Amino acid sequence: MAKSKSLLTVDDIVGAWAIMPTPAKPGSTDWRAEDTVDLDETARVVNGLIEGGVNGILAMGTLGECATLTWEEKYEFMATLVEAAAGRVPVFVGTTALNTRETIRQTKAASDLGADGTMLGVPMWCAPSVETAVQYYKDVAEACPDMAICVYDNKEAFKFDFPTSFWAQVASIPQVVTSKYGSMDRLLQDIAASRGQIRFLPIEAAYYGAARMEPDFCTAFWSNSAVCGPATVTRFRDVVADAKQSGDWSEAKVMAGEIGHALSTLFPNGSFKDFSMYNIILEKERMNAAGWMVAGPTRPPYHIVPEDYLEGAHESGRRAAALHKKYSS
Amino acid sequence: MAKSKSLLTVDDIVGAWAIMPTPAKPGSTDWRAEDTVDLDETARVVNGLIEGGVNGILAMGTLGECATLTWEEKYEFMATLVEAAAGRVPVFVGTTALNTRETIRQTKAASDLGADGTMLGVPMWCAPSVETAVQYYKDVAEACPDMAICVYDNKEAFKFDFPTSFWAQVASIPQVVTSKYGSMDRLLQDIAASRGQIRFLPIEAAYYGAARMEPDFCTAFWSNSAVCGPATVTRFRDVVADAKQSGDWSEAKVMAGEIGHALSTLFPNGSFKDFSMYNIILEKERMNAAGWMVAGPTRPPYHIVPEDYLEGAHESGRRAAALHKKYSS
Amino acid sequence: MAKSKSLLTVDDIVGAWAIMPTPAKPGSTDWRAEDTVDLDETARVVNGLIEGGVNGILAMGTLGECATLTWEEKYEFMATLVEAAAGRVPVFVGTTALNTRETIRQTKAASDLGADGTMLGVPMWCAPSVETAVQYYKDVAEACPDMAICVYDNKEAFKFDFPTSFWAQVASIPQVVTSKYGSMDRLLQDIAASRGQIRFLPIEAAYYGAARMEPDFCTAFWSNSAVCGPATVTRFRDVVADAKQSGDWSEAKVMAGEIGHALSTLFPNGSFKDFSMYNIILEKERMNAAGWMVAGPTRPPYHIVPEDYLEGAHESGRRAAALHKKYSS
Amino acid sequence: MAKSKSLLTVDDIVGAWAIMPTPAKPGSTDWRAEDTVDLDETARVVNGLIEGGVNGILAMGTLGECATLTWEEKYEFMATLVEAAAGRVPVFVGTTALNTRETIRQTKAASDLGADGTMLGVPMWCAPSVETAVQYYKDVAEACPDMAICVYDNKEAFKFDFPTSFWAQVASIPQVVTSKYGSMDRLLQDIAASRGQIRFLPIEAAYYGAARMEPDFCTAFWSNSAVCGPATVTRFRDVVADAKQSGDWSEAKVMAGEIGHALSTLFPNGSFKDFSMYNIILEKERMNAAGWMVAGPTRPPYHIVPEDYLEGAHESGRRAAALHKKYSS
Repeated sequence: MAKSKSLLTVDDIVGAWAIMPTPAKPGSTDWRAEDTVDLDETARVVNGLIEGGVNGILAMGTLGECATLTWEEKYEFMATLVEAAAGRVPVFVGTTALNTRETIRQTKAASDLGADGTMLGVPMWCAPSVETAVQYYKDVAEACPDMAICVYDNKEAFKFDFPTSFWAQVASIPQVVTSKYGSMDRLLQDIAASRGQIRFLPIEAAYYGAARMEPDFCTAFWSNSAVCGPATVTRFRDVVADAKQSGDWSEAKVMAGEIGHALSTLFPNGSFKDFSMYNIILEKERMNAAGWMVAGPTRPPYHIVPEDYLEGAHESGRRAAALHKKYSS
Repeated sequence: MAKSKSLLTVDDIVGAWAIMPTPAKPGSTDWRAEDTVDLDETARVVNGLIEGGVNGILAMGTLGECATLTWEEKYEFMATLVEAAAGRVPVFVGTTALNTRETIRQTKAASDLGADGTMLGVPMWCAPSVETAVQYYKDVAEACPDMAICVYDNKEAFKFDFPTSFWAQVASIPQVVTSKYGSMDRLLQDIAASRGQIRFLPIEAAYYGAARMEPDFCTAFWSNSAVCGPATVTRFRDVVADAKQSGDWSEAKVMAGEIGHALSTLFPNGSFKDFSMYNIILEKERMNAAGWMVAGPTRPPYHIVPEDYLEGAHESGRRAAALHKKYSS
Repeated sequence: MAKSKSLLTVDDIVGAWAIMPTPAKPGSTDWRAEDTVDLDETARVVNGLIEGGVNGILAMGTLGECATLTWEEKYEFMATLVEAAAGRVPVFVGTTALNTRETIRQTKAASDLGADGTMLGVPMWCAPSVETAVQYYKDVAEACPDMAICVYDNKEAFKFDFPTSFWAQVASIPQVVTSKYGSMDRLLQDIAASRGQIRFLPIEAAYYGAARMEPDFCTAFWSNSAVCGPATVTRFRDVVADAKQSGDWSEAKVMAGEIGHALSTLFPNGSFKDFSMYNIILEKERMNAAGWMVAGPTRPPYHIVPEDYLEGAHESGRRAAALHKKYSS
Repeated sequence: MAKSKSLLTVDDIVGAWAIMPTPAKPGSTDWRAEDTVDLDETARVVNGLIEGGVNGILAMGTLGECATLTWEEKYEFMATLVEAAAGRVPVFVGTTALNTRETIRQTKAASDLGADGTMLGVPMWCAPSVETAVQYYKDVAEACPDMAICVYDNKEAFKFDFPTSFWAQVASIPQVVTSKYGSMDRLLQDIAASRGQIRFLPIEAAYYGAARMEPDFCTAFWSNSAVCGPATVTRFRDVVADAKQSGDWSEAKVMAGEIGHALSTLFPNGSFKDFSMYNIILEKERMNAAGWMVAGPTRPPYHIVPEDYLEGAHESGRRAAALHKKYSS
């Protein structure tokens, strides 16, 4: 089943990277549910994203329900992702687990299926030291030399601050080529410390600032909105690229404002900490409200959310849908 | 393989409950290692604890490396535990996982092997709300009606405060009969809120205080020192029981002081938060230094620790060994 | 105005210690307000507490608005407290400030007015190390040798964990004789580390547990409910003392439950962290609802609170008033 | 002594704003010390900064020992600052206190002395809500209509996250014209939310990024290094201005790297939280090591620091001195 492939490099990480959910069939909130992944919708979405122009796909992070899928579901989902992408864009799948050996087992399976890389966080039972986190990435890279690694920087989920000294060290691992990155505060110093070996992906709403700060290096971003319709982020990518050439950032700034406005109601009380408790269901309900795809229900135990938090997610989805419509024409 | 068994009740939870590590063979820090559990040592330790007089066994919590065992290792370890205990004392095994369905899968397997209960924490990718945590325990209890549940209250690991309102709700689940409990601050109100349906187990060092505060209900405790030699905690249990009868707590207080003194060097900088980062290796190195059993090396990624933190763990182990020797005679 | 006095010792700290608010005149929420302290009500409350049987008075902590009084107001309030108490019970006043020298200035003035001691927290602009906090208490004690010190252990306000190593060190300062104490988790080890030189005062709701755990040493507590009517806590003090003699704790337990029930609605969402943001206004509104005294409005900037948090405070006050009525007869 | 002055506007806040310490005489670590401010050095430094080309002066923040000066010392220090500046550049003085009324009292005094504005944090005994913080700034502005306000955004000191909703509200207060600002993560959205009414000042090390992201609006920054020799930051200011014109950012980037390198050893373990505990003494020891001015010792209780933290501060000072020398020529 394995395909021959070469390890991606930092130069391969450009443009708009779409974060995928793992579409769930009706009834997936029940602990009795098995085989919950809607594989048809998965294939349809992958194809739609690629035809819509995204440059890469990231799956099975937090909103991708890495935590709550069974292994059998993960395996089939990964197979479907790779098959649907058919080599048109790189596909990274999440293999974060509770320990090094289980991560390696899952990453090897993903590699055998043909995935290009793993979007990988740190085991989260105990908060890791920098040394523990670095050794973990080294071990996975040594065990899975063909898999590129996108460091999944989520400070709440992984109880880890991902400090500059961490980036300085993992930059020496050839497999570590990118990061789903969380903080603009340290972007420039983290780029410097990692000697240009790691393409840090800001969220789309922060890409405008990153691209202005470091136009030569900041050439890619991740998007949780692409699955609400990809037209906005692919246009945004191109508008930013044009601005880098022309020096006229006015259109890019307008779009950044639109994207930020669409996202702003997603975070309950404007708090990332509160959002982190209900991240999965809020993101999926946002997608469901946008209507471009069917993300479906949320798998247990994260299927419960205060009713009044949902309205912000729905509004955010409707705004994203409106932007997609605007930029589709 | 399944044995016929009846669900334990709160009345079955009394005395000294020993926390087990999962003994590791040499070389277990390497990610290439497979089949790392020393099953012979496991059986020897279980037998030694029971012959030493402990009342129950708790396995695969944090120091028991629930996070870092492979499923195959967990399965064999559980089978060995149950077989070695041979029904002489109840055995609870840890089946905490990243989601409800995987927890249920593991818990069912443990039940089929004959375990009496699960020492169970909450999925930890996202911090749960009270409602999320309660529903999780309800789902597991519904799926595994024969398994008693010991709620594993570890605020750092599970990003959850286990507030009184949580205890009030899970007390209605018949399977929830006990808790490896973390805070003396709220003990009396949590006992009241749970209407006497949950035997809260303080750590041995806190049992003196708990037993004085609520002598009728506080009749059991957990011990991370029993595997440094069980004589201290079984004697302590009996001394406290005598004190409840006689009203003379002087000997119990002396022993509580000795136990506290032996534990005091285990926590780097006296901080539970710092300890939580290196919990597993510090506890295992303490056991190794005590010499009553061979806990072996620590599995990845938690096998790394600052050198200067180890000395406190070793001293703690030596002190525990000295107490065991004193109370063995 | 200074009276001749001798330094209190740990043996002088017994029984029920009432926490006072600083009664405010109407209009005190306005930044233009001056001379806001209702001195008549102050004198009336002090007299009422002493006639009601309390053993000591603590003033100008958090709910006592140490933070928000002007110096002139503090000075007059302290003078009134001391004059009203007239030596019948010890009076401790809060002189926590942003630095060592200002604390000393205020403490000297309090001493000159005849106060027996200071309820003293740590400067809070920067989180202190243990060494910084210990030196601060040493400096104040050296500068004000006649003033007893009640260490004000409030982890949220002072960004300090008050660890056991801190207590071990401040126990060597003769002036440190007591503490408004925050955590039952470490009570026994903190008593041991401080070699019996510091009377730790738990809140009344926790006194039942403390008195059972360590009946010989735990002979005093602080109360935020005494100003809702002192009959409950003075009766509780005596009931606990009787229980220590008789060994029959049943009545004490019932009262502890009543007191806990009355307090339980004070904490929004059951969270001490949330409570800490609105501590002052919630406590004062509770007192106002109880009706035994007029605490008045809350001084700026802490006069703002979400409307729905108030109902819990009012209910708590009504419950406290009902208990006072019950135990007054 | 009051001078006639007009309220500064956002347009007046441009260029390099130097943060001043409050120079201390020998012996100032002793609680017995009085009159500790070295007023001669103060006047000399103010003159040197202005002759060196800085655009504004900020005093009595954290490192400026707002927390640990007596009122008499603050008053004389403010008078000296204003007199030495002599209207050549705007001077903002810190009047953060424990409550609204004391802040207003100090701010009025500063206004009467001729200060242009206050660098103002939020009372820190209780963590404020957004509503509490906003009302506080409104009250101060109403009471002191002639004083500009620089919001002092320090999340650790003031227990407040300064979220975007806060900026949206304080932007309506005419006096709020700038902020000593802490986070690049939200810079663009905070600029948008405040409708261009607040000049957010990043630290010099972050100014490069801010100026690229939002070149039209980001025209000013604060500097804790100017007092290690002002040549570096005034050159940096001009180089960035040139880059905005030419589009060639290469020299600005080199300088940003040099500045970041000089700062990097100031933070113990690379942690802002650890730094926050020893902020004052580390900053002052850095200045003392740089040698451009005599910051002197640190006032109590913040005069204690682990010995091994000092070396990083000294190295940072030496590096800053070397840069100053380089850019002076």
